[in-house]
Amino acid sequence: MKKKVNVVIMGATGAVGTDMLKLLKERDFPVGQLKLIADPKEAGQKINFLGTDYVVEPPSPDCFKGSQITLMAVDVPVSLQYSPEAVKCGSIVVDNSSAYRLDPKVPLVVPEVNEEDIWTHQGIIANPNCATIIPMVALGPLHKYANIRRLVASTYQSAAGGGFAGIKELKDQCLQVINGEPVTKNVFLQQIAFNVFPHIDKFQDNDYTYEEMKMVNESRKILHCPELRVNCTSVRVPTISSIFESITIETERELTPQKAREILANAPGIKLTDDPANSIYPMPVDVYNQGLIFVGRIRRDISADNSLSLCVCGDQVRKGAALNAVQIAEILASRL
Amino acid sequence: MKKKVNVVIMGATGAVGTDMLKLLKERDFPVGQLKLIADPKEAGQKINFLGTDYVVEPPSPDCFKGSQITLMAVDVPVSLQYSPEAVKCGSIVVDNSSAYRLDPKVPLVVPEVNEEDIWTHQGIIANPNCATIIPMVALGPLHKYANIRRLVASTYQSAAGGGFAGIKELKDQCLQVINGEPVTKNVFLQQIAFNVFPHIDKFQDNDYTYEEMKMVNESRKILHCPELRVNCTSVRVPTISSIFESITIETERELTPQKAREILANAPGIKLTDDPANSIYPMPVDVYNQGLIFVGRIRRDISADNSLSLCVCGDQVRKGAALNAVQIAEILASRL
Repeated sequence: MKKKVNVVIMGATGAVGTDMLKLLKERDFPVGQLKLIADPKEAGQKINFLGTDYVVEPPSPDCFKGSQITLMAVDVPVSLQYSPEAVKCGSIVVDNSSAYRLDPKVPLVVPEVNEEDIWTHQGIIANPNCATIIPMVALGPLHKYANIRRLVASTYQSAAGGGFAGIKELKDQCLQVINGEPVTKNVFLQQIAFNVFPHIDKFQDNDYTYEEMKMVNESRKILHCPELRVNCTSVRVPTISSIFESITIETERELTPQKAREILANAPGIKLTDDPANSIYPMPVDVYNQGLIFVGRIRRDISADNSLSLCVCGDQVRKGAALNAVQIAEILASRL
Repeated sequence: MKKKVNVVIMGATGAVGTDMLKLLKERDFPVGQLKLIADPKEAGQKINFLGTDYVVEPPSPDCFKGSQITLMAVDVPVSLQYSPEAVKCGSIVVDNSSAYRLDPKVPLVVPEVNEEDIWTHQGIIANPNCATIIPMVALGPLHKYANIRRLVASTYQSAAGGGFAGIKELKDQCLQVINGEPVTKNVFLQQIAFNVFPHIDKFQDNDYTYEEMKMVNESRKILHCPELRVNCTSVRVPTISSIFESITIETERELTPQKAREILANAPGIKLTDDPANSIYPMPVDVYNQGLIFVGRIRRDISADNSLSLCVCGDQVRKGAALNAVQIAEILASRL
């Protein structure tokens, strides 16, 4: 029997927190004491886990006492406020926000790619951004073989980036457009139904968004490749809970499509869906609630030497956030 | 007063044919005799144009007699059958299908870029693919200044690629998904509501789709640049009638974002929508029924030298098809 581990989920009522709890059950995580924390206005509601009702509590200085692992599924300011509190209480934090990702003292981990970095932690381990995790599962093993020098990505990111409210807004707006009514916007700055917009997170001085620069900086850190050249265009699209990406990589060593398929067929966390003759390729509708990253459309980039194009797709909330954090927690738990 | 021109629209009841007729009126095209031709099962219906009801006729060997310009908005087999008939009758054909685009005897024209090629015609002028026209309006003037050597594009193409029926299928499927009903697919092979799929037109032996290779071959022909290196990933997304593209170009001559903005601000057919600080960038909802191509997100590609990234967006049916053809017809009419 696995040793029980005391777990806190902070942000337990959001899209990612909800999925974390679901995954603890699905993956038979050895949960000992469980505490579910959320914004005070969510507190008081009951959430059932394995037959027991847990009352959602507001955050407090005491809420991490006795906890061994804290799964943080909250915004940056909340993480910055409470992660150090959790660490002080002796809990190891797996933080899904961007608060600590580029902190040199904090490992940034996709378990399929750089699991060993976990053990350099000093109390906090960062979960990468959803749009970084999803390609990294595929690019990690390709990089190991061929040394990726340059990565150009265009993303197709779903409404789940705005949480449950984002998904609801997408569906509400669809109905409004179909019924010829004016569109109401609360979560997203732009209309999301029947639209796409190249604006996720704020713009930086170099005219890239923070979301795009996350791909640059996080990829370099995860792959241990500070000189990696990355160019990303992050685009919101009207899908429900997925990130699809069109990617081109230039490699130092020759990497044929056949070799890439071989590597990916044997790589952890990947489902190779690359059979154009039978109309099989990655698609959002196939990845919803799946833990695997789907990879396909692998082909030689006909515009450059030693260059390969491919498409990846994964569930933004699951492997893009909750599952990656729970996998890290599992690895931590195995040594507690 | 402009000299009247006798016009045939073949495929007059489809999305593109309908927009062609609308544009003839909006742009005050000097229409003399007008004939509206469509599939026999559409024949008999009446369409009003400037106060007169025109009865839609089925195609026949006689239908081009007396016509001076034929606007073809039909599929490849129909164009291959009837374009030569129209030419035999002395009508100049502007063909929106891909039937003749790569024929060396047929000019392939985006008027803002290579208008002069029109006059090499031998009876047929080809309208490029929607996903090629839209970036070409922006890339033509940049190429003239900086000599584009390589173009990498990922597209976000709407349901209008399946015509009126495609748009209806998107809306129907949205309602089905929202109501928890099974999705019915008639027009697109894959679910289009809340999904994206990297499969437009058939796959070729090199694992690119014909749609993607259209971008390669048509860009080279329009820009008179047979050595241009192009890599495209064509993706269907759940928008109504637009093509958005995320593009990176490598140029021979240095092209700063500022210089690109200057060139595009003065280029025909372009609306520069590039003001990230005010959340202004190209978006499908802004381009519906617009003739202009919206360009923004112009920035230095931080992953390569002499490389620039940008986004373009245009109405797939309008400038992507009907308007481009009508512009060609206007130029032809000016010398008839």
